[in-house]
Amino acid sequence: MGPLPIPARTYYGVQTARSLLNFPFPSSGPAARMPRQIVDAQALVKKCAARYNVGAGKLAGEKGEAIMRAADEVIGGSDAVPDSQFPLAMYQTGSGTQTNMNVNEVLSSRATHLLSGSASAVGDRSSPHYVHPNDDVNMGQSSNDSFPTAMHIACVRALKEATLPGLRKLQEALKAKGEEYASVIKIGRTHCQDATPLTVGQEFGGYAQQLEYSVGRVEAALPCLSRLALGGTAVGTGLNTTEGYDAEIAALIAAETGHPFVAAENKFEALAAHDSLVEAHGALNAAACSLNKIATDLQLLGSGPRSGLGELSLPANEPGSSIMPGKVNPTQCESIAMVCARVMGNQTTITVGGCQGKFELNTFKPVMCAAFLESASLIGEAAANFAGKCVEGIVVNEGRVASLVAESLMLVTALNPVCGYDKAAQIAKKAHKDGTSLKRSCLELGFVSEKDFDEAVDVTKMVGPKKKAKK
Amino acid sequence: MGPLPIPARTYYGVQTARSLLNFPFPSSGPAARMPRQIVDAQALVKKCAARYNVGAGKLAGEKGEAIMRAADEVIGGSDAVPDSQFPLAMYQTGSGTQTNMNVNEVLSSRATHLLSGSASAVGDRSSPHYVHPNDDVNMGQSSNDSFPTAMHIACVRALKEATLPGLRKLQEALKAKGEEYASVIKIGRTHCQDATPLTVGQEFGGYAQQLEYSVGRVEAALPCLSRLALGGTAVGTGLNTTEGYDAEIAALIAAETGHPFVAAENKFEALAAHDSLVEAHGALNAAACSLNKIATDLQLLGSGPRSGLGELSLPANEPGSSIMPGKVNPTQCESIAMVCARVMGNQTTITVGGCQGKFELNTFKPVMCAAFLESASLIGEAAANFAGKCVEGIVVNEGRVASLVAESLMLVTALNPVCGYDKAAQIAKKAHKDGTSLKRSCLELGFVSEKDFDEAVDVTKMVGPKKKAKK
Amino acid sequence: MGPLPIPARTYYGVQTARSLLNFPFPSSGPAARMPRQIVDAQALVKKCAARYNVGAGKLAGEKGEAIMRAADEVIGGSDAVPDSQFPLAMYQTGSGTQTNMNVNEVLSSRATHLLSGSASAVGDRSSPHYVHPNDDVNMGQSSNDSFPTAMHIACVRALKEATLPGLRKLQEALKAKGEEYASVIKIGRTHCQDATPLTVGQEFGGYAQQLEYSVGRVEAALPCLSRLALGGTAVGTGLNTTEGYDAEIAALIAAETGHPFVAAENKFEALAAHDSLVEAHGALNAAACSLNKIATDLQLLGSGPRSGLGELSLPANEPGSSIMPGKVNPTQCESIAMVCARVMGNQTTITVGGCQGKFELNTFKPVMCAAFLESASLIGEAAANFAGKCVEGIVVNEGRVASLVAESLMLVTALNPVCGYDKAAQIAKKAHKDGTSLKRSCLELGFVSEKDFDEAVDVTKMVGPKKKAKK
Amino acid sequence: MGPLPIPARTYYGVQTARSLLNFPFPSSGPAARMPRQIVDAQALVKKCAARYNVGAGKLAGEKGEAIMRAADEVIGGSDAVPDSQFPLAMYQTGSGTQTNMNVNEVLSSRATHLLSGSASAVGDRSSPHYVHPNDDVNMGQSSNDSFPTAMHIACVRALKEATLPGLRKLQEALKAKGEEYASVIKIGRTHCQDATPLTVGQEFGGYAQQLEYSVGRVEAALPCLSRLALGGTAVGTGLNTTEGYDAEIAALIAAETGHPFVAAENKFEALAAHDSLVEAHGALNAAACSLNKIATDLQLLGSGPRSGLGELSLPANEPGSSIMPGKVNPTQCESIAMVCARVMGNQTTITVGGCQGKFELNTFKPVMCAAFLESASLIGEAAANFAGKCVEGIVVNEGRVASLVAESLMLVTALNPVCGYDKAAQIAKKAHKDGTSLKRSCLELGFVSEKDFDEAVDVTKMVGPKKKAKK
Repeated sequence: MGPLPIPARTYYGVQTARSLLNFPFPSSGPAARMPRQIVDAQALVKKCAARYNVGAGKLAGEKGEAIMRAADEVIGGSDAVPDSQFPLAMYQTGSGTQTNMNVNEVLSSRATHLLSGSASAVGDRSSPHYVHPNDDVNMGQSSNDSFPTAMHIACVRALKEATLPGLRKLQEALKAKGEEYASVIKIGRTHCQDATPLTVGQEFGGYAQQLEYSVGRVEAALPCLSRLALGGTAVGTGLNTTEGYDAEIAALIAAETGHPFVAAENKFEALAAHDSLVEAHGALNAAACSLNKIATDLQLLGSGPRSGLGELSLPANEPGSSIMPGKVNPTQCESIAMVCARVMGNQTTITVGGCQGKFELNTFKPVMCAAFLESASLIGEAAANFAGKCVEGIVVNEGRVASLVAESLMLVTALNPVCGYDKAAQIAKKAHKDGTSLKRSCLELGFVSEKDFDEAVDVTKMVGPKKKAKK
Repeated sequence: MGPLPIPARTYYGVQTARSLLNFPFPSSGPAARMPRQIVDAQALVKKCAARYNVGAGKLAGEKGEAIMRAADEVIGGSDAVPDSQFPLAMYQTGSGTQTNMNVNEVLSSRATHLLSGSASAVGDRSSPHYVHPNDDVNMGQSSNDSFPTAMHIACVRALKEATLPGLRKLQEALKAKGEEYASVIKIGRTHCQDATPLTVGQEFGGYAQQLEYSVGRVEAALPCLSRLALGGTAVGTGLNTTEGYDAEIAALIAAETGHPFVAAENKFEALAAHDSLVEAHGALNAAACSLNKIATDLQLLGSGPRSGLGELSLPANEPGSSIMPGKVNPTQCESIAMVCARVMGNQTTITVGGCQGKFELNTFKPVMCAAFLESASLIGEAAANFAGKCVEGIVVNEGRVASLVAESLMLVTALNPVCGYDKAAQIAKKAHKDGTSLKRSCLELGFVSEKDFDEAVDVTKMVGPKKKAKK
Repeated sequence: MGPLPIPARTYYGVQTARSLLNFPFPSSGPAARMPRQIVDAQALVKKCAARYNVGAGKLAGEKGEAIMRAADEVIGGSDAVPDSQFPLAMYQTGSGTQTNMNVNEVLSSRATHLLSGSASAVGDRSSPHYVHPNDDVNMGQSSNDSFPTAMHIACVRALKEATLPGLRKLQEALKAKGEEYASVIKIGRTHCQDATPLTVGQEFGGYAQQLEYSVGRVEAALPCLSRLALGGTAVGTGLNTTEGYDAEIAALIAAETGHPFVAAENKFEALAAHDSLVEAHGALNAAACSLNKIATDLQLLGSGPRSGLGELSLPANEPGSSIMPGKVNPTQCESIAMVCARVMGNQTTITVGGCQGKFELNTFKPVMCAAFLESASLIGEAAANFAGKCVEGIVVNEGRVASLVAESLMLVTALNPVCGYDKAAQIAKKAHKDGTSLKRSCLELGFVSEKDFDEAVDVTKMVGPKKKAKK
Repeated sequence: MGPLPIPARTYYGVQTARSLLNFPFPSSGPAARMPRQIVDAQALVKKCAARYNVGAGKLAGEKGEAIMRAADEVIGGSDAVPDSQFPLAMYQTGSGTQTNMNVNEVLSSRATHLLSGSASAVGDRSSPHYVHPNDDVNMGQSSNDSFPTAMHIACVRALKEATLPGLRKLQEALKAKGEEYASVIKIGRTHCQDATPLTVGQEFGGYAQQLEYSVGRVEAALPCLSRLALGGTAVGTGLNTTEGYDAEIAALIAAETGHPFVAAENKFEALAAHDSLVEAHGALNAAACSLNKIATDLQLLGSGPRSGLGELSLPANEPGSSIMPGKVNPTQCESIAMVCARVMGNQTTITVGGCQGKFELNTFKPVMCAAFLESASLIGEAAANFAGKCVEGIVVNEGRVASLVAESLMLVTALNPVCGYDKAAQIAKKAHKDGTSLKRSCLELGFVSEKDFDEAVDVTKMVGPKKKAKK
């Protein structure tokens, strides 16, 4: 296919340049680019492979050291290897081959540079310091096992570094807010209609429980992502590797990342299917359902200031209306709800890609991984924002909450044992018709004394089951 | 593959019986069964084919008449051909071949019965009255063109007979309700927060507009479904047909159904892809978004009776709480919202099936068509229910609506020209802090007289653009 | 709302009759009906509640016994309580209230009938044998906790009785087929292009691994469905229950079903959110991805008989072409692929419903549960069909498989150590250009002797990593 | 909320800075950023608004000119207003308010700079050249009507500038390729099994038809996107505008863009719902189904070089295997298939966002628009890449195609009229059993002479319907 002009001072080589020509997405912009997290994880694979190869006597120690140092620069975001060296689109070969080669090319060039101390040696095959992208950096790997290994590493990292901290922060914020208002009794709502009361603590406790389960779901998804394809090489057989290689390289990756990665017990599955990503994203999708529910509730409970439910005041992070005090747009709720919509879409993307692998290789790798990483990062970061900029600052408008409970007709059920069902119903009907409180209606009808009413209509007894009689 | 025991007194034959054995879904129940609308449309295709074949001199007139009569019985739901004769699962061959054969078998048996006047002739190949399922009923067709033709017929019918009437009924109900309350001014809500006012007529007019567009979208989807695959036979070439057959049979179907069906100009596309169903279902999916939005709004606007927004009273179709008057669960809103969730899922099903055709045939025909029919029927019927049992009976709680407007702080903007921005803001802030009305706050501050306030704070001027000054 | 005419000889009562009027879906047919599995699970809840209530001294023993007996009749599908007694649409109140009432009505009527020995006592409130639908059958429950309890019971049952057996059967069939052909070496394919070889056993082993993981995923989803909402009553507080009730009734349900159901630790979450269904369906969605991949592979590997890949012969379950031997349509592959499309759609439905709960209640309960049950049943049954009617009968066309390997150019890599990379490439290029085998090309070029070629080009050494040298 | 430190030399102001603090998505990277196309369209709205306001005498001419010049710089990508001035996340307020304000701030600052000739005047409210972001740039608009107007403009542009050109290019490439091989007869495949023949021209003609319909679908989606919300202001009433404003500003936008934009007839619908985006994306989703089908077909038809179907040679854009000639990975097919998966996910995202608008405002605007733009750009660019780098370079391997037809058993049907069905079947069975050609089998059996065989088995007569006999 012949030589291609490579921009001066680039580390990447002809395969990267060719991919740029073959897969241009000029107007799609940054959203079409291979996520940086995958590049970093791919560099980490190269680092561990170099370490293994040096240890196995297959790669000269100095070359291996240079590759590892170059990989560290990439992973660390060093200016020596700027982000522009990884310019490829994610919509490339479905095996991620070109990003694997991009990383191979950059690392080999940078390693050559480091070894020779001169940029001019880069690409000079005659140099004694020349590090070969395929023979040295890609040694013992195929894109088909190297790229999915990088996928799993990137996904695990995103879950552990973004998703889980964000979800845990939100769980704690919801729990703390519930505890802050543990004893505030509010009206319950089912079918959006007034129902029997509960405490603010119970309501927020339900939200916190959703988050606790979300955390558990995401944690439960880690093991399936901890299985690495490396050692499968081209079709899963491990051709050109040596027995035990897979476990050894997985151990090196585990050591490097501090996460218990292991070799996938079946490499054929690990190359041909990415059911693990589908499964694991199911946890993110479930978390999105939780978050959307909670965000919508808070939006509605904070609606007002005058014509809404008005139970909560959300923190005013931005100016609402300069002239209208109290108008606080629930922007954090809206932000996270949009994240949820995105995550639910990613579930479809990952499912569609995941179901269409063929024979020994699934070739939807980049889009599946990119969608996964997007969900994992967005959920984690949106949850953290939502916790810090919304939930923690929520103030319960206790007066409003109390008056809604007091006005509620649901409490009439407490009068049944006092005056009987028929009179209780009569009290409620009159209150509804007159638009007055149950108490006023009750007193006007004269069925129950004020003292008896106050004793009977005690919401504090309505927010839990009856205590068991002690024996 | 040998003979199979066929239950006595059945019209269907060995291919149907074999399919029952090969595709058992005992616990999935009726939801796994081939929808009856497809069976009816398939029978209609057979009727028209018989008419064509008799006209073309390929089929004996008496046999053709018998087939047509049998088809009419099927389409009409006659007891002579009970529903149990079409027992197949939709999860069968992806071309719908077995349902095509089921219909061929039943029609041939029934036609034989009709011709011979005796059930005992059924299946008796030696009978002079024997009508052959393949040679006579399926004459000139392949499952590959006959079944997708039935699909389009069934889908068009469902759109015209269920979807469109339902959507139109709902559009009219929303429009009428808006007109009923055209002049009632209410508080607007953006971000779920109090905003500037609008009329109930405008709000319901927005809903009615959504429905009007929905109707238009569905109507716009009809032409692509009006193209019929018939005449493509096995792979789209029309092998074993005669030039012009496709247009003639389409004309017969158009005459039979009263819908302007035409022959698909490209039969290869018509067999290998069902992009038309994907496209047309996009209209149903958009309608579902409209309906979900409206149903949620009505649910929230009707929330209460005491602790919700309380602007609307939805009709009480079922007992809510026997003791608590005014608790009316928005059951029709919930029903249609669940329909919307189903339709959105069907969009995914149809997309996943639609993208996976291979070579000359898409083999996700039954599931795509069944999902489409489900959406079309459900949307139409739920919209009709929602119109008749919810929207038409809605009562606007004008007192509540008026008091929310009156209490709103948003109206302060109308004081800007009277007392200046700074004083107006002061008025609003005091009202918000004190929890009083703007008017009281204004009078207490003494910035504006009561007369001036009432003149300025006129919501009727806030629900539209300024009239153009006449020149 | 007044009396309604109830058809004679029905057990159901006015609330059921009213729901039929309010939620008619005439053309949507059986797919719109509340799934029978939910009805049965609801009856099971009633049975356990009756047992609890008798034990707690709240319900007369004889009434309780009658309710339990009636519930057993429903669960057992007894003719005494025909299916037509449960006629409601799933698109009803989003809490399932009307199905809860339908079951309450039928059980109370049937229990009355059983107690009094006469159908005429049904509905006769003055009868001493009168069992009340609310006071007796629904005692201690709200639809809001009773219906989601039934949902979890039905879902767990479907997973254990349909999904898991089906997936396990398929896993075993794939594993056995792989073992049957463990040593048959075939060409690998990546990017649908010829790649290095693997064994049929390895390829099917990959499929079997996918199923093994699918089984694991579904099993891992059981615990979250084992948490029961019962005891939360209307809003989650457990109002009108006694401390400990939730655990006791869960234990009764566990005993009745043989599944370790427990009381949900947080009832607010259990009523307001159905994240558990979203999570658990994620496992079904992942299984659908696995199944779609495998079915597509088998379809393609079995393509032919002449112009396809032709590696496999799938069993001929139906007549293909009567004149063309060898044409076997991969109908089981198509059936299960359609099931997968449906399941993926259900993921969207469940997600859309799951994210829209409001306040103390999610009101998408019926559609979420019905979609879940559909997926669970379909996957299990389709997998069982696919195993029994397709996978088990697959025959590997060993001659074809061997000739594809022999003709492959990929094997040239084995000549590198023998004649060097350049000559090896020359051999491959000549073979590709001439359309001949590598061996012929090699011998014609004379680079390697036939003996050396046969020794070197040994595919049996290419299907795994190198053995570690013994020390 | 107080002052915030704004980085020196920025044009954006405090609202942008505050949004950066409130909505940080550090690890989500560029994919979380508001797409640039929306920013540009928002600037275009500001330009037209300035023109209108100057014309209506509401804005000083010189200020208006400066705003328009600044907007042109933004739209034109001038270095004077670098991209870093628009740093906001798309996951912000769901109305896009902050991006509206970001654009207002940048344009006002830049206009001030242009007017005063000095960067130091920026932000100096006392400057006579001070252009106010709200009073001047946002004059007469609310985010609630301005942002959705920008959304529609951006979406229309993406469809016209990326989607349609790409789809048309691909349509032409497929059509041309079909015409190039119009007379090459190949084996048809249904159920992935050998079927009756068709021409390569017919097969590619089917693909071209899919694209032609795709183009039509996208074109049909333009009108609903051509309706602009501008003039609705905060809630749709047009408060603070003058009658006729909406039509006039729409006309200015139409003139500026060259696209027939019009004022939405119902502004309430235009703010509260984005069904138009849901509808229009349905066309992109259908196109994705078409593209996925075609890409998969080409992938499979080009499979090989030895062990696949091998009918097509796709162009070798990248090195496959250096040693294995003929291995050409279908990378363009894989790239576009991944795009399709993304688009199908975006359909879910847009649906989920579109169905959840509340009251007078849908607050999923940014994510809906970003997902739409992503789909529109990706489809257009991937289709163009696929056309130019794959379809145009496809070579039909005519020898292989001819031999597959020749070997096919399907052709036996042509012998029916010559030797009768039974003998024809015998010929086919023998050929299948022996693995030989029909012709050899036929000659060996001696049923038909070679001459008669060649005359009868004429595939050229099998690729279309019989010609009508001339009368």
